[in-house]
Amino acid sequence: MSGVIGVYDSGYGGLTVLRALRAVLPDYDFLYFGDNGRAPYGGRDPNTVLDFAEQCTEYLLNEGCRLIVVACHTVSCVGLRHLQQRYVTDPRQRRILGVTIPGAEAAIAASAGHIGVIGTTRTVQSGTFPIEIAKLGPHKVSQVAAPLLAPLVEEGWEDSDIARLTVGRYLDALPDDVDTLLLGCTHYPLLMGAFRAVVGDRLTLLDPAPFIATRLQDWLARHPGFVSPGEGRLRVLCTGDPNDFRVHGARFLGAGLPDVAHVSAEEGALIPRDAPRVQRGQVVRG
Amino acid sequence: MSGVIGVYDSGYGGLTVLRALRAVLPDYDFLYFGDNGRAPYGGRDPNTVLDFAEQCTEYLLNEGCRLIVVACHTVSCVGLRHLQQRYVTDPRQRRILGVTIPGAEAAIAASAGHIGVIGTTRTVQSGTFPIEIAKLGPHKVSQVAAPLLAPLVEEGWEDSDIARLTVGRYLDALPDDVDTLLLGCTHYPLLMGAFRAVVGDRLTLLDPAPFIATRLQDWLARHPGFVSPGEGRLRVLCTGDPNDFRVHGARFLGAGLPDVAHVSAEEGALIPRDAPRVQRGQVVRG
Repeated sequence: MSGVIGVYDSGYGGLTVLRALRAVLPDYDFLYFGDNGRAPYGGRDPNTVLDFAEQCTEYLLNEGCRLIVVACHTVSCVGLRHLQQRYVTDPRQRRILGVTIPGAEAAIAASAGHIGVIGTTRTVQSGTFPIEIAKLGPHKVSQVAAPLLAPLVEEGWEDSDIARLTVGRYLDALPDDVDTLLLGCTHYPLLMGAFRAVVGDRLTLLDPAPFIATRLQDWLARHPGFVSPGEGRLRVLCTGDPNDFRVHGARFLGAGLPDVAHVSAEEGALIPRDAPRVQRGQVVRG
Repeated sequence: MSGVIGVYDSGYGGLTVLRALRAVLPDYDFLYFGDNGRAPYGGRDPNTVLDFAEQCTEYLLNEGCRLIVVACHTVSCVGLRHLQQRYVTDPRQRRILGVTIPGAEAAIAASAGHIGVIGTTRTVQSGTFPIEIAKLGPHKVSQVAAPLLAPLVEEGWEDSDIARLTVGRYLDALPDDVDTLLLGCTHYPLLMGAFRAVVGDRLTLLDPAPFIATRLQDWLARHPGFVSPGEGRLRVLCTGDPNDFRVHGARFLGAGLPDVAHVSAEEGALIPRDAPRVQRGQVVRG
């Protein structure tokens, strides 16, 4: 049987994961859901993250996705198990996979002993990366929360003194003997140049996306027929401005996006609806 | 009769307005509601802003506030009229006041002809400041959206090269003949030093909070008995971490905060509930 792999993210960042997935699985069909109308998630209350994650997951399930990849580290760190317990009642029928464990595995493979993790406030506070890394090896883990980096990337200022100074200030908080830095937010691969400018060759910079993609490829090989290759199609949905999403998303996907459909977040539910034209003045609704 | 004035903000920023309100109305009682668990609002879909604003307004109404000041420019620009139409069915019983018109009035009073407005993406896209300024005078208005500034302030990096470079980059987008810059986000008064370092004496930097406070004082004088002075008490509620809010809020209020009570945002509703202890690992809820 065929099918579409759902990829859910809080906004743009997951497109860097989708890029890696499509590189190794070019024949599969993907449906990407970016909740950019409510991004960023990284500073939010965990309950709010769970609310939004439930709504977006349900939307992808209703679209017929049997397999969903949660491509946002914040959601994967805070609520993956919740989503699995709530929605995967029969694992032969549905699966929801995250990015935290593949990220932890990639860090263990790369590190000589001390792993640094940089991510959103919520990702760091959850402690999920240290917990998962501790299951895999004896490595030390040091974390730093970097709430300004994703907004910097969304602003398009990756290649600026501001980006380099900001990265440098965050990395000052990490011990000197960190040998591998796990980029624990899907926005950060766009800052690879700024990270490299700050750290030089003194540590390994790890974008886990290619490893996440290889792990998904393995998973599909171990579950033949769960989702079959299609025609390499991509559909994209977002909750914010679909034109903005199409334009800015290309930087993250590394390629042009197809037309983006709008899903409206209204009173706690997600509804397919044309995006309102930009309204001048105040909005009044019934 | 007595009563409590409700002050609603997306998070911390409105505390700079509350500070100005208490300076001119020291005997009044205030209830501040900061929706920091779901902040920032500034990049959000307008529908989401309205959802959150409705929930927070209803919470303050249920707490018995007859008079609510919407101290967030994003909400005031996007949805003040919506809140008024929805909740102020009898203006003798309830009032909801915003900060946009006082801000516009203050800018007109200060400017010789060309007003710059800096604010969140949503504030700028709404065009509400230019619309309101146009009702008051023939001044030119130029706007710039500065999505990184509020997160910079929340990070506590106001006094840094990063802050000055970021302010400078945003202000580069404004025409040279702007003579007055309206700080159209309640976070920005904390960046006054950075703004001053960038613009020197070449334009007037306008924090509208003192003017907003004077306008409220006038309003209370014109509506005797609507809310009477109390004992200068302050209660504070927030949707994020109440300890964080108490600690970081002091920078915005310019004074120590009392204990902060937690309101939980769960499945689209606001519920008074003790904040969960910081949870390690993933969150699973029923």
